[in-house]
Amino acid sequence: MHALIRDLYPICRSITGDGFRDSLRRLAEVVPIALAEVPTGTRVLDWTVPKEWNIRDAWIADATSRRVVDFRASNLHVVSYSVPVRARMSLASLRSKLHTLPNQPDLIPYRTAYYAEDWGFCLAQNVLDQLPEGDYEVCIDSTLADGSLTYGECVLPGSTTDEILISVHSCHPSLANDNLSGMAVAALLARAVSREPRRHTFRFLFIPGTIGSITWLATHEADVEDTRHGLVLSCLGDPGPSTYKRSRRGNSLVDRAASHVLKQAGQHSLVDFVPYGYDERQYCSPGFDLPVGCLTRTPNGRFPEYHTSADNLEFVTVEALEDSLAKTLAIIEILEHDAIYLNLNPKGEPQLGRRGLYRNTGGTSPAGFEMALLWVLNFSDGRHSLLDIAERAAMPFATIRGAANALRDADLLRSRDESEVDRSTSDTRPSTTLKSSRSPAARSTEASR
Amino acid sequence: MHALIRDLYPICRSITGDGFRDSLRRLAEVVPIALAEVPTGTRVLDWTVPKEWNIRDAWIADATSRRVVDFRASNLHVVSYSVPVRARMSLASLRSKLHTLPNQPDLIPYRTAYYAEDWGFCLAQNVLDQLPEGDYEVCIDSTLADGSLTYGECVLPGSTTDEILISVHSCHPSLANDNLSGMAVAALLARAVSREPRRHTFRFLFIPGTIGSITWLATHEADVEDTRHGLVLSCLGDPGPSTYKRSRRGNSLVDRAASHVLKQAGQHSLVDFVPYGYDERQYCSPGFDLPVGCLTRTPNGRFPEYHTSADNLEFVTVEALEDSLAKTLAIIEILEHDAIYLNLNPKGEPQLGRRGLYRNTGGTSPAGFEMALLWVLNFSDGRHSLLDIAERAAMPFATIRGAANALRDADLLRSRDESEVDRSTSDTRPSTTLKSSRSPAARSTEASR
Amino acid sequence: MHALIRDLYPICRSITGDGFRDSLRRLAEVVPIALAEVPTGTRVLDWTVPKEWNIRDAWIADATSRRVVDFRASNLHVVSYSVPVRARMSLASLRSKLHTLPNQPDLIPYRTAYYAEDWGFCLAQNVLDQLPEGDYEVCIDSTLADGSLTYGECVLPGSTTDEILISVHSCHPSLANDNLSGMAVAALLARAVSREPRRHTFRFLFIPGTIGSITWLATHEADVEDTRHGLVLSCLGDPGPSTYKRSRRGNSLVDRAASHVLKQAGQHSLVDFVPYGYDERQYCSPGFDLPVGCLTRTPNGRFPEYHTSADNLEFVTVEALEDSLAKTLAIIEILEHDAIYLNLNPKGEPQLGRRGLYRNTGGTSPAGFEMALLWVLNFSDGRHSLLDIAERAAMPFATIRGAANALRDADLLRSRDESEVDRSTSDTRPSTTLKSSRSPAARSTEASR
Repeated sequence: MHALIRDLYPICRSITGDGFRDSLRRLAEVVPIALAEVPTGTRVLDWTVPKEWNIRDAWIADATSRRVVDFRASNLHVVSYSVPVRARMSLASLRSKLHTLPNQPDLIPYRTAYYAEDWGFCLAQNVLDQLPEGDYEVCIDSTLADGSLTYGECVLPGSTTDEILISVHSCHPSLANDNLSGMAVAALLARAVSREPRRHTFRFLFIPGTIGSITWLATHEADVEDTRHGLVLSCLGDPGPSTYKRSRRGNSLVDRAASHVLKQAGQHSLVDFVPYGYDERQYCSPGFDLPVGCLTRTPNGRFPEYHTSADNLEFVTVEALEDSLAKTLAIIEILEHDAIYLNLNPKGEPQLGRRGLYRNTGGTSPAGFEMALLWVLNFSDGRHSLLDIAERAAMPFATIRGAANALRDADLLRSRDESEVDRSTSDTRPSTTLKSSRSPAARSTEASR
Repeated sequence: MHALIRDLYPICRSITGDGFRDSLRRLAEVVPIALAEVPTGTRVLDWTVPKEWNIRDAWIADATSRRVVDFRASNLHVVSYSVPVRARMSLASLRSKLHTLPNQPDLIPYRTAYYAEDWGFCLAQNVLDQLPEGDYEVCIDSTLADGSLTYGECVLPGSTTDEILISVHSCHPSLANDNLSGMAVAALLARAVSREPRRHTFRFLFIPGTIGSITWLATHEADVEDTRHGLVLSCLGDPGPSTYKRSRRGNSLVDRAASHVLKQAGQHSLVDFVPYGYDERQYCSPGFDLPVGCLTRTPNGRFPEYHTSADNLEFVTVEALEDSLAKTLAIIEILEHDAIYLNLNPKGEPQLGRRGLYRNTGGTSPAGFEMALLWVLNFSDGRHSLLDIAERAAMPFATIRGAANALRDADLLRSRDESEVDRSTSDTRPSTTLKSSRSPAARSTEASR
Repeated sequence: MHALIRDLYPICRSITGDGFRDSLRRLAEVVPIALAEVPTGTRVLDWTVPKEWNIRDAWIADATSRRVVDFRASNLHVVSYSVPVRARMSLASLRSKLHTLPNQPDLIPYRTAYYAEDWGFCLAQNVLDQLPEGDYEVCIDSTLADGSLTYGECVLPGSTTDEILISVHSCHPSLANDNLSGMAVAALLARAVSREPRRHTFRFLFIPGTIGSITWLATHEADVEDTRHGLVLSCLGDPGPSTYKRSRRGNSLVDRAASHVLKQAGQHSLVDFVPYGYDERQYCSPGFDLPVGCLTRTPNGRFPEYHTSADNLEFVTVEALEDSLAKTLAIIEILEHDAIYLNLNPKGEPQLGRRGLYRNTGGTSPAGFEMALLWVLNFSDGRHSLLDIAERAAMPFATIRGAANALRDADLLRSRDESEVDRSTSDTRPSTTLKSSRSPAARSTEASR
């Protein structure tokens, strides 16, 4: 995962342009990603697809022609979407175009000027402080012209059309945590999901922030009706504890699943939806109101390296990235497998011991798996799902799901939405399903009971 | 405000009588107040309007005719509603008529005997301790006779008949915080409200405690149907943090508004309704159950000066009084202006930048007003009012309201209850209003859509 | 109560057998208890009534025939339900049949083998450590044969068939807190209840754990429909604070009553239902879902003496036992007397002073009983029961109930479910009751309104 990030790091991405395309092509080596192009000027909801921006070089040179600020050293030096400029000007005149971080004087900030034609440079305050007054040569060798906005899509069909949406913004230049960590985790997640059978259809979006989700929403309003759950991924490689920001709905299944996974895993943070952050802002706008949350470690704006040159390859660790991937997979396990079961022996506890599910010597308290069996039996009353039970028992979903499977194998449990006939089908024995076996006559008999 | 309190302080008020009338006449110099008189013996709910009490002088004199307890020094010395008495008696016989505060030996307590014909004196324990045994001359020059109960009313009509009730008990003698602070804040509040256009009709009541609200309720049962919100004001001048006691309903708009204002202002206390306190007891009796809360600083009985001679002019500060008035006005701003708006561009965020509502350089997080815009847009879905949004955003109502006004000016928002026609009216452009423009024909067209 | 526990302590109880029967006969000296016998092999829900176990003696003797482990010293030495054995074997071979507590090396554990035919001994780790290797004589003089399962029942009819179920497991050998304390408290509770008039029918069950409640439920499915409230009692004599484990429903009246009593009494613990513990597991299985909670002091498994020889007569104190009995009686007072009343003077407060219910000198805050009167008046609106009011007021139910009775005597309150006619009946004046006075004609008139 770190190698992937290392490859992507030097590329100068922005919300359009070749840097974005090149990055997606690198991700497409991990999992197939289709690239879509939307022309400049296309109306998308309240917005318009902007001109395409590409950059080759940029610098500020002193009287001796020495580059005192050099795009080749860091692509953060240029304000993203800067229009081309070639001029000689005094430092005094130049100052209004220079962005620094006075409180973090060694770091280069990350700044953008997407929607107002402007230009500028970002540099360390310490570097600026050492520049003598006088004239400087300024060059931004960029183009801002009609072209297209690019986004990548990887759709993995499941046994149903119900969709899980995973969205990552991929438009930042050399910033490792925000957003390379999200891009890398999403690509490896897609590969992992692609290798397993699945109930949901998965859609992974690699998009430029804000304008990308707006463009996708504008062009996929019909698809959105199938979106059952969604996650925006970003900032998944820093050493901070995991943070989940709930969807606007606040208590959708993805919210509960993420909350459960994070609680079980230890130190974490859960925050309510706020209408600022990443693309969940657009998915959760009131006209869509999709159940899409946002998983990060330290959230945007809360770590000092945020949007600075300190968000570099050293800042993201393999441990954090792998932990983030594991948690995302655990959330998806719940989305895929949460279900309501029925206890087939609801009066009193069934005698688990004679089925080999309970120890024979009494007098001590039950261990984890035995407790999970008791929890599943007691609450599988047709109203509590496995996630409900896992939350109530404060046990991992996987343990509760394992107990449910064992009870099902012992004929003590069945899925609420499953008939005996269905059940045998899922056991791969030949059988007719509920739908075909129930004649209208059979149904009318039932209704007259 | 303090000058008003200084003028009122020396007057000997009780639940009836000239002291009460004189006090209201002083308040009527600030804002017009109509005085009503209800005759002794009138049945009011379960109660009867009592006899009118007036007092001219009272004292206890020793063998040398020196006044050892003197009404002219403090009107707290006489138990309110004491029947007239003129007698010579031993200190031993007198003791059962003397009230002191053994734990606060320098202070004179405030005591009443409204509904049992009795008499008595209040004095400092230290003074009592120094009285030699022997005979004393006792005089209370009062009258308790048929007359009337007085209350003051100031009604400020609004554009609707929906009423906001502000009630202050005005029956305590020389006690500055309880209740002169409430009387002064209410009078100045009424003057401020009278100077602005307003949606609600405001009704300010200056009444004797308990019997006053019972009398008003008994004689205004029909008016009560228009009461939408209400506040009892008292104890608004002490240095403690503001306290709001919720109405019996607990979550009415006034409860939420007061809670919001106090939370935004800093240290405060919110308490649930209890059936003891001030006149909210009557407004919130189950047969009325009006949405009336009580705003104080330190509540009744919780400050050591309560109902003693230490509740004097030094105890109330201008800062506390003005802060209380400001908070009351902030609560009223919410009652007047809370409304539900509709985001007219609900799919995705509208592009605020091109409307001059968002800064052009990206990379940093939005400031307060920009966040307020995002909050209003995201939650103006027809289900959340501005107060809901202010609570959720933990931002001042005024900021959220300002953002809503800006979005409305940018045609991104409209009131849920407002037609386009109404809108132009409120912009003071000539137009017919909704009511006059909607003919039955127009309505039937709408219904057939 | 301690004497009763002392008598019961030496008896070797198990889930069947003469020890169980003898224990119930001792309890029947306190309150009448009927013994029921259910034959071995009877199918009860998912279980089968096991063989009856009786034991006369058991020991392990060394080469000198000295008993190194002796049932006569402690009946905990034998694993309950051990099959008979008589053998000579090496200590090495014997070890797999020996149970100790390595972390509590002085204590004998309590172990059972109810549902797998096995045998074993329990002993202190320190004793085991001192046994020399070599051969030992082993004897368990028990019988495990067809017979019956015994349980005891004490039914105290009330004025209605609505039932309160009190269930105590009575199957443990010489363990004082678990379960002799529960047996003793339940017996004394039954005696106390039997001496008072009562609305509910009370049913006390003295049963073997798990199989006993399953057997009773299997044979009383129709009776269960009358169960309105229930308590499992156990571990009521240790010095820890009281603990109430809620029923599966979580907010049934018994849950709220127990919570109220424990909160009013001081330090305590309230825990949500978990599907492990005592017989509430069976009563709260999803097919029954009865409102049955569990009252203990320190819960099962949470005190170091649990299921060891340290749970002895010294471990339970008279103070703890009497406190537990008092709390149980307080819970029952609520179950018996909670009701919804109507304030007959709901507009404003009634004038309590002229009814002798309020002090005449004003200026000080009301005392407990006066506050209780105000609470009952304000919230007796037909929606709040006395328990609701007691919870809201944070006052003892008994105080609130006393205030309600006083207000009822003053004609200020009546029961919601009581007509004026009924009321006079309860005053023992001759009258026809509501039921008899309402002719079918009257009812049909009402229906046509």
